[in-house]
Amino acid sequence: MRPSIIALLTDFGIHDHYVGVMKGVILGIYPQAQIVDITHTIPPQNIRKAAYTLFNAYAYFPEGTIFVAVVDPGVGSSRRAIAVRHQGRVFIAPDNGLLTYVLSVPASERPAAVELANSNYRLSNLSATFHGRDIFSPAAAYIASGAALAEMGGEAENLTQLQLPECVISGDLITGNVWDIDTFGNIVTTIGRMRWMDDRLLTLQSAFGAASESRTLDSQSLAVAIGGQLISPLVKTYAAMRDGALGTLIGSEGFLEIAVRDGSAARRLDVKVGDPVQIQLKA
Amino acid sequence: MRPSIIALLTDFGIHDHYVGVMKGVILGIYPQAQIVDITHTIPPQNIRKAAYTLFNAYAYFPEGTIFVAVVDPGVGSSRRAIAVRHQGRVFIAPDNGLLTYVLSVPASERPAAVELANSNYRLSNLSATFHGRDIFSPAAAYIASGAALAEMGGEAENLTQLQLPECVISGDLITGNVWDIDTFGNIVTTIGRMRWMDDRLLTLQSAFGAASESRTLDSQSLAVAIGGQLISPLVKTYAAMRDGALGTLIGSEGFLEIAVRDGSAARRLDVKVGDPVQIQLKA
Amino acid sequence: MRPSIIALLTDFGIHDHYVGVMKGVILGIYPQAQIVDITHTIPPQNIRKAAYTLFNAYAYFPEGTIFVAVVDPGVGSSRRAIAVRHQGRVFIAPDNGLLTYVLSVPASERPAAVELANSNYRLSNLSATFHGRDIFSPAAAYIASGAALAEMGGEAENLTQLQLPECVISGDLITGNVWDIDTFGNIVTTIGRMRWMDDRLLTLQSAFGAASESRTLDSQSLAVAIGGQLISPLVKTYAAMRDGALGTLIGSEGFLEIAVRDGSAARRLDVKVGDPVQIQLKA
Repeated sequence: MRPSIIALLTDFGIHDHYVGVMKGVILGIYPQAQIVDITHTIPPQNIRKAAYTLFNAYAYFPEGTIFVAVVDPGVGSSRRAIAVRHQGRVFIAPDNGLLTYVLSVPASERPAAVELANSNYRLSNLSATFHGRDIFSPAAAYIASGAALAEMGGEAENLTQLQLPECVISGDLITGNVWDIDTFGNIVTTIGRMRWMDDRLLTLQSAFGAASESRTLDSQSLAVAIGGQLISPLVKTYAAMRDGALGTLIGSEGFLEIAVRDGSAARRLDVKVGDPVQIQLKA
Repeated sequence: MRPSIIALLTDFGIHDHYVGVMKGVILGIYPQAQIVDITHTIPPQNIRKAAYTLFNAYAYFPEGTIFVAVVDPGVGSSRRAIAVRHQGRVFIAPDNGLLTYVLSVPASERPAAVELANSNYRLSNLSATFHGRDIFSPAAAYIASGAALAEMGGEAENLTQLQLPECVISGDLITGNVWDIDTFGNIVTTIGRMRWMDDRLLTLQSAFGAASESRTLDSQSLAVAIGGQLISPLVKTYAAMRDGALGTLIGSEGFLEIAVRDGSAARRLDVKVGDPVQIQLKA
Repeated sequence: MRPSIIALLTDFGIHDHYVGVMKGVILGIYPQAQIVDITHTIPPQNIRKAAYTLFNAYAYFPEGTIFVAVVDPGVGSSRRAIAVRHQGRVFIAPDNGLLTYVLSVPASERPAAVELANSNYRLSNLSATFHGRDIFSPAAAYIASGAALAEMGGEAENLTQLQLPECVISGDLITGNVWDIDTFGNIVTTIGRMRWMDDRLLTLQSAFGAASESRTLDSQSLAVAIGGQLISPLVKTYAAMRDGALGTLIGSEGFLEIAVRDGSAARRLDVKVGDPVQIQLKA
């Protein structure tokens, strides 16, 4: 029997009992679950960061994986709890935008979302403050053990959406934003997905865009404008950067990154999430 | 076959090799073990916090779970190592009070405790400084693989006890203490367990108390005194709090909490574990 | 069937999606893998610390365990990716010295190393910045599922080496260095491996040395010189130290440690990794 993977992503931190409790609940319902932590240190209530992290992780998990993503400032309020089938996986989360990026990735079938309303698939004493334990974890375990999404509740329409990452390709100017700053201070932009064709040429598609938006760039003749600076060197690896110098590269997910070898590019450039980034093609 | 869950709780931190080594030892003895981390960042040598965290987590794990809890300032000294069967689960820990809260929860059978004295169920080269590796982890793995508690050693009597959380209900005054401050700065008190009956009424029992101590309170007419302040609003959810305002609510384990939405109530009120808390019923 | 353990050690931190992605990749290739985290908070690019942590952990994992150790400042450059069979286990890492300490431990057969060059055992779109995902994790999963090391690539010779820990025994003087400082501030030296014979006598071998280098010491008549101080008390346990006083003891791996009960010896003595340590035998 293929074990069912349940992957967890929360802002509960690693110090308290919250994550352990979720795992206990899951294993109490479905002992065969193979529980995997993505991260539990999303900054408290930072839905965008959770959405970004889930987006970067989910596609590397096999089909059949059930994701439980809980960053939930509205816990106990009227915000819905949802489960969505998409790309052969199931995503369980509060309906607050957390699934925006994942659900925006095109798939052969459109996402099927239900509201987690059936009290048979919850813990019996519902708290008002810990639905990760009382609603989301049980739902994941019951789905892993074979319950159908349709049993969980009615169809959920008009899901809450975050703004999608912008990547506008217009003539010789490509415009985006800082999408994330990782733990090392690397700046990840919304400009992508890029891929090297050879050492000089690369292709660019807008992040969630159609094929018609793709184009080919000459890496020698572009510069990245961010934080009031123009950064020219486009390198393939962190190792190819000179110590202490700013450089741009294509990150592991295909998005344009700005980095400093052995340092924090975000601190150096004093930029934050949402700040504008442009690629200027030089004549 | 139902896998055996071994749940770990330590103050070893996440940076060094200590926790990984415990897992290696467990899997070397019992490869089918399903190891779950509760937390490894209990503040060093803080037995109370470990006891509190284990108390909040254990009941959500299925019967049969084996808990290994190691916060052990007396490692290598004459303090006993124990295993206790209670509520269908097994708790393995140093005898320093860490199991106090868990063992105080009433059960149909009284806890059965043994001293981990049998050298057949330890690693062969016993260190004086790392019994998590040499004694506690092997004991858990051998028990998971079928060894009886009685084989591990003789009965352990007079276990070390922490002071139990106080919750005294006396007329219109309910008295307790700050029991814990979680990572978010939420203040958890020893006043509980509380449950909503409807939007206005709630029932209160002393934390580990008998039914006779329970009473019904009108949530509209009570105020919580802590840190020299009276806090009135008793809300159901964090989302129902006004931004930046102090509020009280019933936490996920049924204990009275004081919180600030998107902030630290403990810092705001400048309170610490052990400080007094009172519920005053208004006329 | 005995599950295959894959143990992970990286400097990717716990905040981003990187570790979760590695686990997803592994489980996508080999769903039966039992993934264990050793640590993911090696200080960024600190190869020595990673080598030290792996050295302390690996022997406690059962034979058959596959270790994936990724601290990889040269990712994307020409540094090799390797897999090495040693002591019945497999070690997968960049060839940057990370395996030095592990491979220096004598075994009945010499280590067998291959370069991870076969693109059939990688993800198909190789990034230049995340070989933990694209090369190391897939290699581990394919080996766990039965692929032979010889299929992965040709023999890898002349592996990159860190300097081995020094422990020189010369007459009444034993000389070594600070090898590591753990999270609690305990100072671990390269002087070892030591074992108590009785309360007064201990045996010492140089860290990776031959039996001929071993000798017996009288614990009452030795002093440890470090950071310009002489520290006399050699105790068996942390609990035997007086509060706030410096002491020396034999750590859980058999190396001489300097510690302060409930404090940081490293801060107190102002020493750092590499600083000299001597044992002076008193007349």
